Formats: sequence, C-alpha cells, structure tokens
Amino acid sequence: MTPLHQRLFDELERFPLIDPHSHINPHAAASKTLADIMGYHYYTELAHSAGLPKSKIESPDIGPKEKVGRLVEKVADLENTAQLDWLMDLCRTFFGFEEERITSKNWEKLYDAASAKMAQKDWEEQVLKISRLDKVFLTNDYDDPLTGFDTRRYVPCLRTDDLVFHFTKPGTRERLAKATGIEVGDSVTLRKAIGALFTHFVNHNAKACAISLPPSFTPRPVDGLTVEGILRRVAAGGDLIPSDAELLSQHVFWTLAEHCAEHKLPFDLMIGVNRKVYAAGVYQGQDLFDQRVSLIQYRELFNSFPQVTFPVSVLAQTSNQELVSYAWIFPNVVTNGHWWYSNIPSYIELDTRARIEAVPQNKQIGYYSDMYKLEFGLPKFRMYRRILSKVLADEYVTNRRWPEERAIALGQQILRGNVERIFGV
Amino acid sequence: MTPLHQRLFDELERFPLIDPHSHINPHAAASKTLADIMGYHYYTELAHSAGLPKSKIESPDIGPKEKVGRLVEKVADLENTAQLDWLMDLCRTFFGFEEERITSKNWEKLYDAASAKMAQKDWEEQVLKISRLDKVFLTNDYDDPLTGFDTRRYVPCLRTDDLVFHFTKPGTRERLAKATGIEVGDSVTLRKAIGALFTHFVNHNAKACAISLPPSFTPRPVDGLTVEGILRRVAAGGDLIPSDAELLSQHVFWTLAEHCAEHKLPFDLMIGVNRKVYAAGVYQGQDLFDQRVSLIQYRELFNSFPQVTFPVSVLAQTSNQELVSYAWIFPNVVTNGHWWYSNIPSYIELDTRARIEAVPQNKQIGYYSDMYKLEFGLPKFRMYRRILSKVLADEYVTNRRWPEERAIALGQQILRGNVERIFGV
Amino acid sequence: MTPLHQRLFDELERFPLIDPHSHINPHAAASKTLADIMGYHYYTELAHSAGLPKSKIESPDIGPKEKVGRLVEKVADLENTAQLDWLMDLCRTFFGFEEERITSKNWEKLYDAASAKMAQKDWEEQVLKISRLDKVFLTNDYDDPLTGFDTRRYVPCLRTDDLVFHFTKPGTRERLAKATGIEVGDSVTLRKAIGALFTHFVNHNAKACAISLPPSFTPRPVDGLTVEGILRRVAAGGDLIPSDAELLSQHVFWTLAEHCAEHKLPFDLMIGVNRKVYAAGVYQGQDLFDQRVSLIQYRELFNSFPQVTFPVSVLAQTSNQELVSYAWIFPNVVTNGHWWYSNIPSYIELDTRARIEAVPQNKQIGYYSDMYKLEFGLPKFRMYRRILSKVLADEYVTNRRWPEERAIALGQQILRGNVERIFGV
Repeated sequence: MTPLHQRLFDELERFPLIDPHSHINPHAAASKTLADIMGYHYYTELAHSAGLPKSKIESPDIGPKEKVGRLVEKVADLENTAQLDWLMDLCRTFFGFEEERITSKNWEKLYDAASAKMAQKDWEEQVLKISRLDKVFLTNDYDDPLTGFDTRRYVPCLRTDDLVFHFTKPGTRERLAKATGIEVGDSVTLRKAIGALFTHFVNHNAKACAISLPPSFTPRPVDGLTVEGILRRVAAGGDLIPSDAELLSQHVFWTLAEHCAEHKLPFDLMIGVNRKVYAAGVYQGQDLFDQRVSLIQYRELFNSFPQVTFPVSVLAQTSNQELVSYAWIFPNVVTNGHWWYSNIPSYIELDTRARIEAVPQNKQIGYYSDMYKLEFGLPKFRMYRRILSKVLADEYVTNRRWPEERAIALGQQILRGNVERIFGV
Repeated sequence: MTPLHQRLFDELERFPLIDPHSHINPHAAASKTLADIMGYHYYTELAHSAGLPKSKIESPDIGPKEKVGRLVEKVADLENTAQLDWLMDLCRTFFGFEEERITSKNWEKLYDAASAKMAQKDWEEQVLKISRLDKVFLTNDYDDPLTGFDTRRYVPCLRTDDLVFHFTKPGTRERLAKATGIEVGDSVTLRKAIGALFTHFVNHNAKACAISLPPSFTPRPVDGLTVEGILRRVAAGGDLIPSDAELLSQHVFWTLAEHCAEHKLPFDLMIGVNRKVYAAGVYQGQDLFDQRVSLIQYRELFNSFPQVTFPVSVLAQTSNQELVSYAWIFPNVVTNGHWWYSNIPSYIELDTRARIEAVPQNKQIGYYSDMYKLEFGLPKFRMYRRILSKVLADEYVTNRRWPEERAIALGQQILRGNVERIFGV
Repeated sequence: MTPLHQRLFDELERFPLIDPHSHINPHAAASKTLADIMGYHYYTELAHSAGLPKSKIESPDIGPKEKVGRLVEKVADLENTAQLDWLMDLCRTFFGFEEERITSKNWEKLYDAASAKMAQKDWEEQVLKISRLDKVFLTNDYDDPLTGFDTRRYVPCLRTDDLVFHFTKPGTRERLAKATGIEVGDSVTLRKAIGALFTHFVNHNAKACAISLPPSFTPRPVDGLTVEGILRRVAAGGDLIPSDAELLSQHVFWTLAEHCAEHKLPFDLMIGVNRKVYAAGVYQGQDLFDQRVSLIQYRELFNSFPQVTFPVSVLAQTSNQELVSYAWIFPNVVTNGHWWYSNIPSYIELDTRARIEAVPQNKQIGYYSDMYKLEFGLPKFRMYRRILSKVLADEYVTNRRWPEERAIALGQQILRGNVERIFGV
C-alpha cells in the first residue's frame, strides 16, 4: 500500500458497517470451534477440488477437531487463494495466530486457541465489536418465526427461492400452510398466503425480500387466471410440464414483486446461479453458472415496478457492465456487492472501478459478507475496503485531485450510507 | 501521472484531431447556455437515475436557467462519475470555473459566465481551436440537404438506422420520396432511391455511411426478388410479420453495403444497442443492451465485402475481444472508438490495451466524441489521451524500451493518422 | 520492472520447463530459415490484415528469402503487437539482432545471420538449451507412426478433431483403417479402432488426448446403438443430416473420453473455436470464435468422468471466469494456459490474477507455447513469466507479505510442477 492508500484504508476501517446480506443464524451467530470456520463451503469445496474425497469430510461421524485436521492436510494446495487469505486474516485477528501458514504441526494449537476464545461468554459481542458490525441482515426461510433474537441487530430478510422455484414440492406448501394457516389451492389463496408472509416479516422488522435466480429465468406478469389450473394440479399432487412450472414460477415471482411494492421492501435479485451442476460435490459446493444471461430479461420487471428498489447482484463477472448500465439508466436498479464467484479481489477491483465511474453514488451498495458465521465479516469486508480505498486513492485523490476527506466521504456512502437509506435501517 | 506519462500526454495534446463520429448540428455546433451542456443525456439520465423526476427536467415550459438549477440539485449524487468529470474539466477550461464542485451556491455565477462566453461571436471558433479539432464528422439523416455549412469542417456521414429498421413507417418513406424524388414501390425503386442518397451524400463530401444495430441483427444477402411482395405490402400501408420485417431490414442493409462498395465509403457499424428498454426514461436515456451478441453474426457481411472498410464499435465491453480478434484477422474490419456504455475510463483502458497488443496499428481508430455539442470534444478526447498515453508509457516506453518519440508516433497514428487514411479526409 | 518483480522473474527464468502443448514437428523441430519463423500464421495473418494480399505470400513459387522480404514490407504496421515483440525478442536472443526495428534496410543481414545459426548441426539442441525446455508435447494426427524421434523429449499427444468432427470424410476413415487395420462399419469396429489408436499412442509414451471444439458443441453420452444406422450410412458413403452428424460427433467424443479413463490419459479440451470464418484468409489465419459459449455445456461430461483430468483451455477471454469457477468446484477440471486470441499480455494478466486467486494451486497449468517452431518457446514463455512474476510480486510478496521464496515456489508449481504431476511426465 502507498501511504495515501493506507490512510484512506485506515479511515474506511474506522466506522462501523451494516452488512446487508448474510446467512447468519441469529441463534448461533458466532462459531463454536474452528470446524465451524473451516467447514465453510469455500474451504470444503476447494479442498475437495484439490483432491480431498468428499467422504473424508462429510461423514456424520467425523468430530469437529478431526474434520479440521483432515482439511488442514489439504490447506497447502489452497494457500494461493483469496479464500485462504480470509482464513489467515481471521485467525491472526481473532485467535492471535502468528505463524505464516497453517500446517499439520501447528493447527492443533490454533484449534485449541480458537476454542478457548469461542467459549468466552461474550464471544459474539467481541466479534461484532472487533469487526465493527452494527447490524447484520439475515436470509430467513419464509416459515421462520423470527423470534428469540434481536431483529434490530440481526435484520430479517424474506428469502423466496423455494416459493418461486420449488412450489410444486409438497414440503414447500406444507411449510407455507403451517406458517400462514392458509392452504393454497388456487391463486387467491396463494396471494393471501404470500401476503401473510410479508405481513409477518414486516412486523418483525424485515428490511428486504431476496431471491437467487437461474440464468434462464425471465420475470413476466402472469396473472392468477393463467395459473389457476396449474395451481389446482399442484394442490392435487400432480406433476407439471416444464412450461407450466415456468408459468407458475413467473406468477409467484410477480406476486412477490407486487408485495414488495405494497410493503415498500427492496427486492434483492441475485442473478445467475445454476444449482447442483456438480451433484457429487460437497455440501453447498455444487452450484455453478452459465455466463449467457442478460439483464434485458428483467426489462419488464424494472419497468413495471418503478416504486420498488432492486438491489441487483450478478454472479458472472461478465454481467457487471450490464449491471452498471442498467443502474445508470433505471432509477430503481441499484448495484449490490460482489457475489460468490465474482467475490475475488481482481474481479472486485474491475467491477468497483466500473461502477464508481458510471453509477450515481447514491445507488451503489458496496459490499455484503454472504457469511454463515460471524467471524467472516472482518476479513471479507477488509478485503473490500482494501480495494475500495485503492480505487478511491487512484481515481479521486490522485487523478482528480480531490481532497482526501471527500474521497473518504464517498467511501462512507458506498460502504454504509447507502445501506441505511436504501433499506431504511 | 508519472513524469513519463505526463510527457507523452502533453505530446498527444499538442496536435489537432479529426473527430470521426459526433452528433453535432453544424448549424448550431456550439452551446448557447449551460443548459445545452447540462442537458446532454448523460446528465439528465444520471440525475433521473439518482432520483430526479423526469417531469422536473422535461416539461417544455422550463427555461434553460431553471433547468440547470434543477439538475444542479442532483449533481452531488453524480460527482463520482466520469461524465461529471467531463463537465468539470469543460467548465474549468472554457469558463474559468475554479471551484471544486458545482453547488446550489455557485452555479448561477457559472451559468452567467458560460452565457457570456457563449455569446461571443466567434465562440464556435474558439471552442474548436482550444479543443484542437480540425474537422468533426456528423451524423446526418438521409434527407439532410447538407447545405449551409462548410462540409470540409463538418464532414457529412449518412446515418441509415431509419432506412433499415423503420422502413415500414410512413414517415420514413415520405422523407425518402421527398429527398430523392423517388416513390419506393418495389426493390428496383428502393435501389434507385438509395443510390440517389449516396450520390447526394458523396457529392456533399460525405466520408462514411453509419448505422447502429440491435444485438439480434444478422446481416444476410436478401435479394430484391425475395422482398418484392414485402415491399408492395409496405407501399400499400400493410403490416409485416416479424420475419418479413427482418428480411426487409436485411435487404436494405445489404443494399447499403453494396452502395458503400460502389462509392468507396467506409460503413461504420455500431453494434449492440436495444432501443427504448426503459421507455419511461428521459430523452435519449432509454436505451440499453444485451451482451449476448457476437461478431460471428457479421461473418457473411465481412466476407462478402472485402472492398468495404467496416469501422466497428461495440456497445458491450465483453464484445471487445471479439472486435480485437476480428480486426486482427479480417483486413476490412477496423476497431473504432469506445462507444457509450463502454466509454468509461476503466473499460477504455482494458480495451485500448487489448487492441494495441493485437490489432495492426494501421487498423485502430482511437476515439470519437459522439458529442451533441462542441464543448464536449475537449474533455472526452482528453480522457482518452490520458489513457492512451498511460498505455503507451507502460507498454512501449517502459516495458519494451521504445524511445519516447516512437511511442508518440504510434499515438499519433491511432489518434489522427488512421482517421485521415481510413476515411480519406 | 521493479527490483522485486525483476528478482522473481529472474528466479522463474532459472529452471527448465516442460511445454505441455505445441505443434512441433519432431522431425524438423527447429527452423531452417527466417521464413520458418516469419511464416508463422501470426505474422502472415497480421500482415494480411494490415493490407498484404494473400497471393504475395502464399504462392508456391515464392522462395523463403523472398517471402521474408515481402513480410518485412508490412512489419512496420505490426510493431505495436505482442506477436511482433516475440519476434524481436527471439531475434535478439538467438541471432544477436541489435537493431530497434526490422526494416527493409536491415532484414537481409538478419536473414543471413539466422540462416548461419540455423545451419549449425546442433541448432535444435542450442534452442532447447537456451530456451530452457526439457520436454515439448506434440499434437499428433491419430495416424502418426510416432517413430523416428525421442518420445521422452517430444512427448506424443493424440489429437482427435478429425475423428470427432470429420468422420464422414472418406480420408478420415481411410487413414484410420490404414493406421489400425480396422475398417469401421459399425459402432463395434469404431470402438475397436479407437482402442487401437489409444494403445498405439500410450505404447509410444503419449501423455494426453486433445481436441479443439466449436462453441456450439455439447458432449453427451450417445451410445453405439443410437449411431448404428448413422455409421452404416457413413460407411456406405452417404451424407448425414446435421442432427445425425452431431449425434455421431457426440458418440465419438464420448468414446474418446471413455478411452481416456481406461488409459488414464488427461483429455485436453480447447473450447470455443469456429473454423474457416474468414475462408479467404491466409493459411491458419481463418478461424475465429463466438463468445456465446458456456462450460455448462460440459456439465454432463465432467460429472460422468470423475477419473479423467480435463485440462481446459478457453478461446474467449470472457470464458475465463467460468473456467476459474469450474476448476474451483470440479476436482477433474484444471486450468490450462492462455490460448490463441486470449494469449496477449493484458488478457493473460487478467486471467492469471483470477485463476491464482481462486483455483487451488495444484490445478493450474500456467502456460504452453502452441508453437510450430522451437524458437518461439523462448519469447512466449518469457512473456508469460514476466506476467506471472508481476502477479506473484504484487499479490503475494507485496500484499500478503509472503517471503519471496514462497512466491517463487508457487510460480514453480504453476510453471512446471503441475505439468509433471498432471500429465505424469
């Protein structure tokens, strides 16, 4: 880092953040052992990809310490990755780990040090404080009771993949009936049930609705009448041909958008994932994508709901320019973070540069952690801050001769201010 | 800038340019008020995207000063963008503006200073001189009389979008009939009318034919016989089914290419725009794109017209490698500027690096302004020169140890020499 | 280069490499005249693209010196390209050329100096030694006898394009019959013939099977029964409709993959080329691509053959993120070099950064030369080493504070170690 870069980075580290998307379980937000951390799919899938058989890490009878030991055997092959750099940063910051590498010789000491820290009563508080996280958004199943935790700290978000893409599965409908008390048999009861979910979530401080979408999906206004027969077949336990399944997905999706409008909730779109491409992969390490996708598929949606804000994440880095351009033109399209396969430093830097050059600064949500365990907020946001401060230093302070405070203010807006305003927290 | 970068930049600023593509109105080339400048679609669309209602800037009863005042209210949200950097550069250079930002407190003074400058009788001359522009290419409607201005300074270019994609509209055919004296009723009269346009344009010093094309378009040789019935239906005021409309577009396009061959005019292809994607957007702020497009769609065209030079612009940054590769292989394909959504510094740099590494140096047209008002030539070309001089400094002087003069000569060829030779000006 | 970059580069230059993909003719590996070098398709196609008529370099009656003289006339237009930089590096290193440019005034001296060097008896040995190449993989036709050369130095590789995509051509089947003694009339004899090829190749130290694939191809398990009728029609000299030709291609391809599994050979996939897009182009300068391709097309293949390693090269730079992601998830997918239109410094750097950030370090094959003549190994691998050492310096030594030796070890693994292990040499 140049001294300028370092100064901006330090300033961006100074203020606390709100993490607008994670998979934290608010009842067990922090880790209990290093296995919670090294069991993150990034490590299991990379270790598996590097040669570790799935059975060696996924048998139910493997204890946490044993699991970590087995993953450590493969760590040397992953040391180059950005993901392993998160792990090192995290171990250094939280557990005082000072070795250059995690090896078969030193991992047990690290494991035990971590366990001791994690056993402290206020560990969760410590992590939040050290990580400078004020609030963390969740990803809640639609039938989550949303009780037993502080929804001002852990902000609920209604995740809707199952409703849109797995409505034909009996489990989806049973859980919906149980959660809402409404048995869906037609489009009227479907709308009622969805309405009940939104009311429940909004009453529990939910600040967003969210969904991940395959590259093939194109939202369209499919009305209740069109799916009446389809819904009856589903209710009767029948199968759907693909075109009917698609109509039903489009109908449910459009109904969700209508409810976002009614309840003034932003609708997070995470565009571009193909599920279970590698079905023999480890847990959560099976999904990939097809870069042949376009935001033109969302044209009708963006035009039909000018009152709904759509924070959009794209999985393919090749989609970033479309995202920049659509956010530049559509008032209701907002750029949102750096998702999954695009969440590596070189792509984050390219994408950050393009966004900051062409999207109004009030329409950029810089980053979210996507984390499952609280300890990952720190290294992930730090990676992003490092890149953002570099872009601010190069582009604004050096090239445009802005005073440093002005560049820092821009960074604050992208890191925190826009999250507050867009999600209303 | 490093001292080396600065030296190369200064040298590239020293010589005058020819702008090979703009939307200048030669009868009112320079601005009259700051509203002409801030009314550029980049500012209206970004301000609208950032939250300014369309009605606040597009009602016909808003005066120029009032319009600027309303746009200034939103300027703070756009300060990060490259587009706003053009505005600042332009205001500093032409109007002596020395503030760091345009605000509600200082804009009126700027407005008045600009008005005073623009009221000077030789303002247009001043702008051209300060901007170091010798000639500016226009984008002329096919029924433009091309009179009343100096065609050696403002070089006509035959724009053909309407002929290819809106021939079924009565207005298109009426204007064609009026311009040529030929009523198109079949393929023979169509060819005659197009021939008359080319003769008219070439007689008035036109140096290019140009068109923008949607991602779905694929040129094909569709002969007159194939469209005979279609043209008669159009002439009779009938509607066309999509496949017939496409055949007609392909026929008109191919006929244009044949006339480019006959008249030795380069055919500028601007590939990849979808029109009116956001129909509720501001004027000229409604178009977007679908990155799923390939130059393979132009394979038959490039093979069929080896004698026609095709300066190609691509809208999607993801199309740049194809453009580089097609220009590397096809003698008649030339890279042309950085268009619209790809015209931001980070994409210009990536694309410039790839082009300069792999396309023969006599086949690269570095940049065009695409401007509507003359004042934008300066900041846009300056942005490009800054990037080009950086690439020349890094790649040629530093890495390959070229003498600086040699790198400058390469820059001159890409900035000016190729424009002269390829368009014959 | 910074001193750090230079130190890493020097270290990466110190150890010899194995080139895992080339088109070297082992019976005439080194060049005889400068025409062998400047006749490389990169120079002929670029010179042709820059304006040199094909007839001026491809008539059979042009002698080598005359040919070089004609190419030199166009060299000035190509000086900017990376490809010409290879030529300059090569001429400096091998022929003591010390001029800044190759011109009409100095080329004859260069030509003669090169001829004198190349006439030395041990020229081939000298080139290998100076280039630090231990072994070079070949691209062998399936009917290559593989005799008369040292297969430990020039490692055979079974190239299978003709079998998969040109099986209907009589020449393909005749050559197959001649090579194996098996007349293919049905799926059983087809399998036997392919088995015979694999046995022959493996017996001659072949270390890979390889194929280049058009963007439209999707491998599928098509069994023998399905193609029985098709194969009989082919054997009878009949034509195939496109859908049958595709079934046959898929059947042959799948059969090849089965044999790779049986013989434990990696299967190099070079994905994305369209052949003869510019049919009037110079020899080997006619192929281009369509970026609209996805590795999702290979989903079933990667899942069906977990025991086969697939070193994957992609032609489109826009495919690199998919390659990174598929290699990150699938244990049997490995990143392989920088192919053809992606083999220019700016794309190599982008792609190298993404790969090194997200793919396990034991799954990256850094580079191959793709060369036709031995002299190109040096400048091509040197270009790659320069980029790789920069990435290692920036990302690992500077950002992550790794000791230099550790970054160098990572570079060694990517440059050499993985080639040894993955191909078993």
